[in-house]
Amino acid sequence: MSEEGLIKLLITTPQNFLLAEPLPLDCGRELKQVNIRYETVGTLTPEADNAVLITHALSGNAHVCGRYTENDPKPGWWDDMVGPGKAIDTDRYFVICSNVIGSCAGSTGPRSIDPDTGNPYNLTFPVITIRDMVRAQKRLVEFLGVRRLLSVIGGSMGGMQALEWAINFPDMVDSVVPIATTSQLSPQCIAFDWVGREAIKNDPRWNSGNYSADRVPEGGLSTARMLAHITYLSDESMSRKFGRELQDADSYSFDFQRDFAVESYLEHQGRRFVELFDANSYFYITRAMDYFDMARRSGGDLAKTFSAAKAAFLVVSFSSDWLFPTAESRKIVNALLKNRLNVSFCEIQSGYGHDAFLLEVDALGRMVRDFLRNRLEVRRG
Amino acid sequence: MSEEGLIKLLITTPQNFLLAEPLPLDCGRELKQVNIRYETVGTLTPEADNAVLITHALSGNAHVCGRYTENDPKPGWWDDMVGPGKAIDTDRYFVICSNVIGSCAGSTGPRSIDPDTGNPYNLTFPVITIRDMVRAQKRLVEFLGVRRLLSVIGGSMGGMQALEWAINFPDMVDSVVPIATTSQLSPQCIAFDWVGREAIKNDPRWNSGNYSADRVPEGGLSTARMLAHITYLSDESMSRKFGRELQDADSYSFDFQRDFAVESYLEHQGRRFVELFDANSYFYITRAMDYFDMARRSGGDLAKTFSAAKAAFLVVSFSSDWLFPTAESRKIVNALLKNRLNVSFCEIQSGYGHDAFLLEVDALGRMVRDFLRNRLEVRRG
Repeated sequence: MSEEGLIKLLITTPQNFLLAEPLPLDCGRELKQVNIRYETVGTLTPEADNAVLITHALSGNAHVCGRYTENDPKPGWWDDMVGPGKAIDTDRYFVICSNVIGSCAGSTGPRSIDPDTGNPYNLTFPVITIRDMVRAQKRLVEFLGVRRLLSVIGGSMGGMQALEWAINFPDMVDSVVPIATTSQLSPQCIAFDWVGREAIKNDPRWNSGNYSADRVPEGGLSTARMLAHITYLSDESMSRKFGRELQDADSYSFDFQRDFAVESYLEHQGRRFVELFDANSYFYITRAMDYFDMARRSGGDLAKTFSAAKAAFLVVSFSSDWLFPTAESRKIVNALLKNRLNVSFCEIQSGYGHDAFLLEVDALGRMVRDFLRNRLEVRRG
Repeated sequence: MSEEGLIKLLITTPQNFLLAEPLPLDCGRELKQVNIRYETVGTLTPEADNAVLITHALSGNAHVCGRYTENDPKPGWWDDMVGPGKAIDTDRYFVICSNVIGSCAGSTGPRSIDPDTGNPYNLTFPVITIRDMVRAQKRLVEFLGVRRLLSVIGGSMGGMQALEWAINFPDMVDSVVPIATTSQLSPQCIAFDWVGREAIKNDPRWNSGNYSADRVPEGGLSTARMLAHITYLSDESMSRKFGRELQDADSYSFDFQRDFAVESYLEHQGRRFVELFDANSYFYITRAMDYFDMARRSGGDLAKTFSAAKAAFLVVSFSSDWLFPTAESRKIVNALLKNRLNVSFCEIQSGYGHDAFLLEVDALGRMVRDFLRNRLEVRRG
């Protein structure tokens, strides 16, 4: 028997949950026949006290860990953190992860069929918010028989959802772990999102969102992704990973094809993204983040917004993350402390930039593992 | 007589200098019939010892200061720094500023007519380098009767040219003032340039560079500029200037039109740039910067590259500049010091990001004024 044979593969299966009732949205409209794609791993205890909801980032999906088949070459997006014996231990916790509405990985989004017209929504899909995403998740959590989550854990946009959980459904969350995130999108981030969408708009294939499945705005979407990808890395990590290395030659080509390794890498990232993600979803998800501003709903007073929260918090940032820098996490921590909430905070030293939340598995994993164990102990008295 | 009448307007006139001989280029090709658009202000002394060359940044031009007519609403791009009585005092110095080759503001560039074909070069224009730009400038300086410049002063890409002057023509420069610049473009900057050019490529109007003057790739060029513009500001300056202010309303529009003040600002910057700048020049100038790497020519040893330099240096950086951060200036300073050169260095505290070299006129002006006076005194013994 080969050594590989000793490793027990975690096989997961995507599920669908159709919301029984229309979903009211922040924009004033409502969504009918909303489907939520989700996966669960582990076993819910009879007391239903070990459920952990993991919320995903912009390009994420419900497939947080494990593989779909034995030969599946690629595991879920946070497989380093989630699974049997891992930091978010599926032998101990019942892990739920669902694709956000507005996305394109199984949940209802702009490319879904509008039941009123029989055609894809495209840009007639309502503009949604992070809170709307969380409202849909709440229905799923209830459907799964969980009245109180042990924790909601998410990085980047996932962290925004975790924060929304804490203030919108305070009695349903024992703890919240917002990682590499912010309480409001900065103007710099809004600007990057704007430019990314402009790049898509300029692609004639986009056609105001009414593209066909076999003729998607590849160029625009790939450009938007390449731009975003730069913001997920750091100057330091790019210098270490690529420097000014040339990709295929010893000297400059003196043309406009890719010369540098970093150009080649971006090109690859852009191309890969186009295969996985939808341009209209890119519009809706980035807009949801643009609109994310927890202080705004309390006239700019973030502490007041958090006065609704009851959960225990573990807030984590990364030193080289310039998209959602540590200062943003500190703002959250200060606002939570003003409400005398139970808050732990850690800035992890890392050169990986924003992507660190996917890469710094050791440091992050230790912290999350201990935090969850502690919360479960507290809960079980 | 009105008060305005008391202010003596500085009127400048653009000039053209046609290179007598073809210009050899780093790529191995040569450019024939090269025109250089330039302006001069002030008077060259009989000893020709007071000439200051100002080198411009990506989107700059020869019109560094003054106005073209009495009613010209807009002065030159560095009018706050350059003029009678100003930091670079045109009552004392003979100021030269020329448009770089490859650009689109009068000097020969990709939209010029190729004398061999009678058609615009477009992408048949050779890929040029910062050193090529400086080679052309050298001919202009000689034509103007200047054998040794008192100083070469430039910010951003202008600083790269100043550094090239110091090592390529060490006997022609008494001093060099590289501001907010770098000795080699970082992979992050290369990445941003790549994405900007991709945005232009995706615009069907670009047509591989063969667009007509009445149908330019506005969308792509404007997107590239908006992206670049973000990198010229800082997170701090954007937060102070725009925050999350909405442009025209009290609440979100829940669509993809511009909602935020920062989106409106970027849109304006993009539109304005399209009126002033050419898409093909954007390709050539950004590529020249990508290829800029002073250490490369000495096998990675920047100090060795600078061993050719003889000038005195004033190196200036700005604390919130994340495009060419202070660490890049320190690298330059260290390499210069290893060669026992005369170096002054200052990091100016500023929240304006990279754009600070155009905005921090008081702090920068004081330093440059003193430095130039001192250099002239030294020169005159």
